[in-house]
Amino acid sequence: MRWANLTSEDLNSLDKDRTVVILPIGSIEKHGPHLPLGTDGLAIEVVAMEVAERTGAVVLPTLYYAYVPENRHMPGTITLSGEAFLRILEEICDEVYRNGFKKILLLNGHGGNKRPLSLFLREMQAKGKRYNLYILLDPWEVIHEKIREVAETDVWGHAGEVETSYMTYLFPDLCKLERVKRPAKLGVEKVVEGVEAMTDWVGYAIEGYVGDPRKANVKKGKALFEAWVKGLVEIVEKIKRDELYDKILDEYYSKIRH
Amino acid sequence: MRWANLTSEDLNSLDKDRTVVILPIGSIEKHGPHLPLGTDGLAIEVVAMEVAERTGAVVLPTLYYAYVPENRHMPGTITLSGEAFLRILEEICDEVYRNGFKKILLLNGHGGNKRPLSLFLREMQAKGKRYNLYILLDPWEVIHEKIREVAETDVWGHAGEVETSYMTYLFPDLCKLERVKRPAKLGVEKVVEGVEAMTDWVGYAIEGYVGDPRKANVKKGKALFEAWVKGLVEIVEKIKRDELYDKILDEYYSKIRH
Amino acid sequence: MRWANLTSEDLNSLDKDRTVVILPIGSIEKHGPHLPLGTDGLAIEVVAMEVAERTGAVVLPTLYYAYVPENRHMPGTITLSGEAFLRILEEICDEVYRNGFKKILLLNGHGGNKRPLSLFLREMQAKGKRYNLYILLDPWEVIHEKIREVAETDVWGHAGEVETSYMTYLFPDLCKLERVKRPAKLGVEKVVEGVEAMTDWVGYAIEGYVGDPRKANVKKGKALFEAWVKGLVEIVEKIKRDELYDKILDEYYSKIRH
Amino acid sequence: MRWANLTSEDLNSLDKDRTVVILPIGSIEKHGPHLPLGTDGLAIEVVAMEVAERTGAVVLPTLYYAYVPENRHMPGTITLSGEAFLRILEEICDEVYRNGFKKILLLNGHGGNKRPLSLFLREMQAKGKRYNLYILLDPWEVIHEKIREVAETDVWGHAGEVETSYMTYLFPDLCKLERVKRPAKLGVEKVVEGVEAMTDWVGYAIEGYVGDPRKANVKKGKALFEAWVKGLVEIVEKIKRDELYDKILDEYYSKIRH
Amino acid sequence: MRWANLTSEDLNSLDKDRTVVILPIGSIEKHGPHLPLGTDGLAIEVVAMEVAERTGAVVLPTLYYAYVPENRHMPGTITLSGEAFLRILEEICDEVYRNGFKKILLLNGHGGNKRPLSLFLREMQAKGKRYNLYILLDPWEVIHEKIREVAETDVWGHAGEVETSYMTYLFPDLCKLERVKRPAKLGVEKVVEGVEAMTDWVGYAIEGYVGDPRKANVKKGKALFEAWVKGLVEIVEKIKRDELYDKILDEYYSKIRH
Amino acid sequence: MRWANLTSEDLNSLDKDRTVVILPIGSIEKHGPHLPLGTDGLAIEVVAMEVAERTGAVVLPTLYYAYVPENRHMPGTITLSGEAFLRILEEICDEVYRNGFKKILLLNGHGGNKRPLSLFLREMQAKGKRYNLYILLDPWEVIHEKIREVAETDVWGHAGEVETSYMTYLFPDLCKLERVKRPAKLGVEKVVEGVEAMTDWVGYAIEGYVGDPRKANVKKGKALFEAWVKGLVEIVEKIKRDELYDKILDEYYSKIRH
Repeated sequence: MRWANLTSEDLNSLDKDRTVVILPIGSIEKHGPHLPLGTDGLAIEVVAMEVAERTGAVVLPTLYYAYVPENRHMPGTITLSGEAFLRILEEICDEVYRNGFKKILLLNGHGGNKRPLSLFLREMQAKGKRYNLYILLDPWEVIHEKIREVAETDVWGHAGEVETSYMTYLFPDLCKLERVKRPAKLGVEKVVEGVEAMTDWVGYAIEGYVGDPRKANVKKGKALFEAWVKGLVEIVEKIKRDELYDKILDEYYSKIRH
Repeated sequence: MRWANLTSEDLNSLDKDRTVVILPIGSIEKHGPHLPLGTDGLAIEVVAMEVAERTGAVVLPTLYYAYVPENRHMPGTITLSGEAFLRILEEICDEVYRNGFKKILLLNGHGGNKRPLSLFLREMQAKGKRYNLYILLDPWEVIHEKIREVAETDVWGHAGEVETSYMTYLFPDLCKLERVKRPAKLGVEKVVEGVEAMTDWVGYAIEGYVGDPRKANVKKGKALFEAWVKGLVEIVEKIKRDELYDKILDEYYSKIRH
Repeated sequence: MRWANLTSEDLNSLDKDRTVVILPIGSIEKHGPHLPLGTDGLAIEVVAMEVAERTGAVVLPTLYYAYVPENRHMPGTITLSGEAFLRILEEICDEVYRNGFKKILLLNGHGGNKRPLSLFLREMQAKGKRYNLYILLDPWEVIHEKIREVAETDVWGHAGEVETSYMTYLFPDLCKLERVKRPAKLGVEKVVEGVEAMTDWVGYAIEGYVGDPRKANVKKGKALFEAWVKGLVEIVEKIKRDELYDKILDEYYSKIRH
Repeated sequence: MRWANLTSEDLNSLDKDRTVVILPIGSIEKHGPHLPLGTDGLAIEVVAMEVAERTGAVVLPTLYYAYVPENRHMPGTITLSGEAFLRILEEICDEVYRNGFKKILLLNGHGGNKRPLSLFLREMQAKGKRYNLYILLDPWEVIHEKIREVAETDVWGHAGEVETSYMTYLFPDLCKLERVKRPAKLGVEKVVEGVEAMTDWVGYAIEGYVGDPRKANVKKGKALFEAWVKGLVEIVEKIKRDELYDKILDEYYSKIRH
Repeated sequence: MRWANLTSEDLNSLDKDRTVVILPIGSIEKHGPHLPLGTDGLAIEVVAMEVAERTGAVVLPTLYYAYVPENRHMPGTITLSGEAFLRILEEICDEVYRNGFKKILLLNGHGGNKRPLSLFLREMQAKGKRYNLYILLDPWEVIHEKIREVAETDVWGHAGEVETSYMTYLFPDLCKLERVKRPAKLGVEKVVEGVEAMTDWVGYAIEGYVGDPRKANVKKGKALFEAWVKGLVEIVEKIKRDELYDKILDEYYSKIRH
Repeated sequence: MRWANLTSEDLNSLDKDRTVVILPIGSIEKHGPHLPLGTDGLAIEVVAMEVAERTGAVVLPTLYYAYVPENRHMPGTITLSGEAFLRILEEICDEVYRNGFKKILLLNGHGGNKRPLSLFLREMQAKGKRYNLYILLDPWEVIHEKIREVAETDVWGHAGEVETSYMTYLFPDLCKLERVKRPAKLGVEKVVEGVEAMTDWVGYAIEGYVGDPRKANVKKGKALFEAWVKGLVEIVEKIKRDELYDKILDEYYSKIRH
């Protein structure tokens, strides 16, 4: 159920108090020599649709324009400023709520979005928003166990074994695995251990991918995808039943004198 | 050729001086009882893809989050503020240009976007942008003749005969034409002739569609769609060859002391 | 009746529900070799005062600081950014409404202001403003017929036959018609037909005027001015009687859950 | 010489390095029962024009939309926010400088503008502006001596003896001195001595004027006006000759590493 | 009583209607060769603490990050933009008020802050703030008499005899008076008499101090400090008793239709 | 070495390329019934000063005004908006760099600041800042081992055993341990496992502290404090020697076409 594919009346007839509205958020950035620039959005949108299918959630148009300063030096990256990204997230959520829907789930598909999304949650609270906002910060939060199970390599992050596996399963035509000739060269992980620096990712993932994507295959991809969907279906079902959110939020706001 | 579907290297290997980068812009708003909320984006994206196929243009992810205050009172509408809309347009164009592409075409699919897009053009000039920005303001600019040719009704605008025809041709599964029982009731077109008012559209298209969509059919839709694509292919070819833009712009900026 | 010339008490004693408050908006930009930089504001202010005389409207101080990026490369232009222009318009309208006046008419005297003013109307709606905002977008909206009647040339726009005629009639001392030696040289109207480009006006009106101003004369100017005033008097009278605006607006806002 | 009344060429042919460009700034606010709302702008504009006549300065359109929160509770006041006021001042000055003029004089006609104007000066410095910005902060800076000479009353401020005198001299038709029946009732000057409070003006000038305007007369007005013009002519002449500004500013900026 | 040193409960148990909350505001800028960069904040914080001790006021953490464009060319200066400075002042005051405290006193320790603080007062009024905001604009407002009494020199301002005296008394370890070898060289006070210019301070206090700090001594410092505290204690006591503020403000707001 | 305590010349004479400038960042929020509202800033400032003592770093005035929406419902909290907090951080860092210092270390003392600080790092990169920015995101990053060693309880976070221990050691007079009668009641940790929600902290730490602070003692506090300082001294030493930062950053920026 895509919001954009429904008629006004069909959308309006849904059970707005319980229906979970999902906003998939991707990115546009280099994913090695073999995966498409839009990998994060492409994957999270399929996951979202599959989850919606099984739970009755409604899926908003995927937001490809997101936050990727860390890979901006690689060809093809399109990033918003943090300010613009936070702003359109707020406006979209406000509009969904204005339409009567209360439960909003942001499904993040790109690691670099964690920073603005993490702040976004608190900013909405600081601004007194009344909707129940849930954010999947770490895209792979629910498949870490499955990753440990299927991964043959230790470094399987950005455009590596894991991502390549499910992209090969979901979008075989868009993957050019044959272009990967060797594991990624990696640079310095941190210039100084214990503190964050602007160089952290930039100095490390110097080729736009990590690990050895050649270890990816369709079977792993299928297993990962199914675990992903399963994990998120459970979360969405919990969200549908969640009645604590409003209770806690109401009490919180009532103690803040405006 | 979708920007998001290309690898970093494939995008980078394009002829950046001549390749036209297309941003399709839609909307999310009521389109009568029969067409999907995302009609404008769904249609303009297909048009853009077909045009790209024939011209070698690259198509960015469609922007569904756009500018629709005028239909905000109908269920399902999601609109950005003018400020946010203008800002992400600017950031996206800036990033495309930063990637080395010079010719950017905004393909607008929603009438209400004309207002902010019309300002956007001048604002980019005021800010001294160096890219060649082309905007299709009126989505149907190139098919007005074809519309006159195929339309049986006089009022064929928003979710009417024309739009319904090509949506039926392009997305038959998403159209519920059977729900249309009669022509749209229309309200007052203008409270005062000769000046614009906030009530103009709101008081007029009171049912979220106009005219009699039942006059729509697949054959008309095919004819309209093909004329649309043909008209835009011609435009894109002209854009590819256009060398005057930079010349005029350079002279203009050179006379402005910054 | 100028707002600035009234005492506080005199203004306060007006019938605020029906009195139309007019904001004349001009520009500061080159108007050929013969007309003053402030032409648009000078003319629209006289028009506004004459209309006020006949209708009891109140006229605010003319806004000369407006939106002219398209002529910024010509000596003498002063333009605001779109953002600043929209903002002071909003603050002025808000203050007028705060003073109890409900009917606000923006009389635009400069073509280039159409872009921001067109957006302004929707932005005020999006922000839920309660005043009845009317905008004369095209300065010559009500005299197109009269123009067809008196004009001897086909290209009579910016600083051309029409404008020069009424400026000669209204401000003979400020016009230097003798400096015009020949019709304006014109450049390329559009780099690509069918789409808007930043070059459109810049590449066309390369001398800061169009057509042949030498065809202008006082008689035409008088006819044009009188038609202008007459047309606007009719509009202001309709605005005074308009009761539909609030009705439509109230219903619109009531359907938007805030 | 009004900027708006000059043609593009006439303005362009001025000696830009030495010509002083004057921006008169007024207000729209209650001035007792007898003076017009626009008093501050009306007066300072006449002063500016007279000064320009004698010095060759160029006068920009008067800014009536200015900063008056302190009289906002009186009918007729129109004020901008501090933010908007500062912004358009900056944009106007930037445009004047972009046109090649270097010496900009803000002639303030309204006491309440002192607060934002005082900050404006430093903000332009903080932003590294290169123009020579001069601000007459206190409108009566140059006539304090003359005031002491002609005034019969001690409290002669806002809409009192002084202002009423020169308004009666300059705009006899707009003054309704007969409406003043007695000296203004005054409230508490300060709630707490030694610190500023939001109540300071509001609690004091409770009738929108101070002192006894009935002491005003045309003769005093003429004397005040002539002293005003004379004082400002001297200032403008000094500004024309001032070469220290650039020298000091250049050294200042050179020491700030950007 | 420092806000930051109290527990949540202890703060909460105070008489919020009468307790005065003090925000000391300093600066970071050159104070001659002999005084520390943070002089203004260091001094005003001690003053605030001493005043609080005697009046029961609560002191917020000192704001060292303030407004110093005028000394930005001297090593060590840290200044905020006017916009940022105004914004955090507003947010801090809003939060104090949200906590239930009504009387807020900004104790300014730096002359250059007068400009933004002066605007801040009116901006809070324009925004309809309900708290009683008191601002000590001129740091030495209450000790001008004492200064006249103890000062041996005529020019005793920035880092001069006065400031050096009380710093020597309060922070002997941070003062390097031995580095002052002679009175400060001073530049041009004003490029043009009668108007403000960006060069005014910059061209004058060219060595980052004025006058002859060698005239400073601990005895004078003690006298000045004690007068300062005494003067402010009286003010704070008046603020505690002030009931007029709310009355005037309520009436003012009630007359402004929002 | 406090920046604010140095004279202009003393600061200026430091080795700017290698000197690390530390900005301690705290918060103002409830810390149980026993610890002061400013705990985070008080502690991190002492840590910073001790680290500076041993490394030659310079310490800026502690920023107490930070980001605490999550405890805003408890008496005493003062929080900035995310936008304002990010802005003053940027302006402070810019000013430090403008003064010639390159290595800037933000020492965060409050868990809730992690969200905005995490975004801040990437935003500075997106804006092309040239300074070497290091951020201690998690205040206890370097003492997790020591915590495991000394803590007797499992839940030792906000105002719990750990924080209370070092506060008792560093600020015995400000701690009211006797007010703690029992371990904190805790609420629901997460309304839905696997996703973030606005209720997460609010619903959990319902008494403004966690765990059993009565397990705190001075000995643990001393051990924790010393480990903290030791860990940070090592980090600062590494920062002083770090030459990779510029290299990586330069290459990154060189690949981004602006």
